[in-house]
Amino acid sequence: MRYILKVSYCGENYSGFQIQNNKTTIQLELEKALSEALKEDIKIVASGRTDAGVSAIEQVCHFDIDKALDKNIVGYLNVLLPEDIRVLSIEHTSDDFHARYLAKQKTYEYYFYVGNCIPVYERFAVNIGYNIDVTKMQEACKYLVGEYDFTSFCASNTSVQDKVRTIYDASISQIDDNLYKLVIIGNGFLYNMVRIVMGTLVDIGLNKISPKEIVEIINSKNRAKAGKTMPANGLYLKKVIY
Amino acid sequence: MRYILKVSYCGENYSGFQIQNNKTTIQLELEKALSEALKEDIKIVASGRTDAGVSAIEQVCHFDIDKALDKNIVGYLNVLLPEDIRVLSIEHTSDDFHARYLAKQKTYEYYFYVGNCIPVYERFAVNIGYNIDVTKMQEACKYLVGEYDFTSFCASNTSVQDKVRTIYDASISQIDDNLYKLVIIGNGFLYNMVRIVMGTLVDIGLNKISPKEIVEIINSKNRAKAGKTMPANGLYLKKVIY
Repeated sequence: MRYILKVSYCGENYSGFQIQNNKTTIQLELEKALSEALKEDIKIVASGRTDAGVSAIEQVCHFDIDKALDKNIVGYLNVLLPEDIRVLSIEHTSDDFHARYLAKQKTYEYYFYVGNCIPVYERFAVNIGYNIDVTKMQEACKYLVGEYDFTSFCASNTSVQDKVRTIYDASISQIDDNLYKLVIIGNGFLYNMVRIVMGTLVDIGLNKISPKEIVEIINSKNRAKAGKTMPANGLYLKKVIY
Repeated sequence: MRYILKVSYCGENYSGFQIQNNKTTIQLELEKALSEALKEDIKIVASGRTDAGVSAIEQVCHFDIDKALDKNIVGYLNVLLPEDIRVLSIEHTSDDFHARYLAKQKTYEYYFYVGNCIPVYERFAVNIGYNIDVTKMQEACKYLVGEYDFTSFCASNTSVQDKVRTIYDASISQIDDNLYKLVIIGNGFLYNMVRIVMGTLVDIGLNKISPKEIVEIINSKNRAKAGKTMPANGLYLKKVIY
């Protein structure tokens, strides 16, 4: 029987989602807790990995086990898990569900702020500095929407061949005077893609390049034309839709 | 000469703003850094204390010293201070400026979220649980606006006599699907006032009381009629206006 596991985590203290030798990862903690709670070795498959330091509001995984689960399983797992990883729900699903292959749409958010360092914002957002024109960043977002080869926005150390992705929506909204979030929705994202998009938007906000130049950057299919990879700790996997 | 010191801090690791025996407080850290940087004993006066665990986006203080300050003083103080306390600016002001007595208006924010525990939201917001009608909480906010005796919203262990305060504005805005902030602006706030207001709004969101009953709670001048004091870690002093 296949189960959908929805989970939320703060990535700060983990070497990313995926299991790696001798490193503390979200997947390791989840499989350890599931295996202990269910008294057999459980392996999970997620909608995708998240990098070291990246958090998830709602990550979706699946796992298989040949028995019905006790209704208290979520509560029990949350006792076993560290506090920065919380199981949101576990539900029975059909055997052909697949958390990675069937993911249709993902939403990522990047929390950022401008101006002076604000210690309490540092806990969940990234400071992008002074003299930033956020209006220009907002304007640039519209040029990201569509189906494109996003090679320019993909870390070079990737094995993925097909770099065509569709962005359904990208926008920046203001949370407070100096605090914002980028929300970006697509059918999938390349390695470091949102963080490189964010780095390019920062260059636009700094007037190093114009909003429309993002079109040329996409067309160049050249990672060197885009901005730097912004820090992981402003990035959140918000939602996965099937 | 009198100087205005603007400072931002995360309150999590401190026993509040005000100096207390044998406790680590924001004021202690600031006076220690100022005294070391300026080579004499400096005492600061803030717009008001913030409680243990409460953060400030921008707190305003003043201090006196009989010399002109080096232009690099802000940078130097930020080297001396712990990372969760940042000096935003220091500016010369007139000798009759007073950070506490002349404060005309303060803005507080309370970040909260509903539903499941989201570890990354726990870093800056307070979970208020399930089945909450935030629309009702929003509606209740309007009844707080005006000049009232807010005895019902003041911790009983206070020495303040005059409990009349004016609230200029109170509103809730949505930051994300389940994430919100209460913004409340007034000419001053009583001990624990915003946290008790928030606790009362939660009772309204839970349909324990109706939005309009907040008027009766104000009129009762009875702390026991209002809701519980919500946790400190969702509360931020946002701004002080003179």
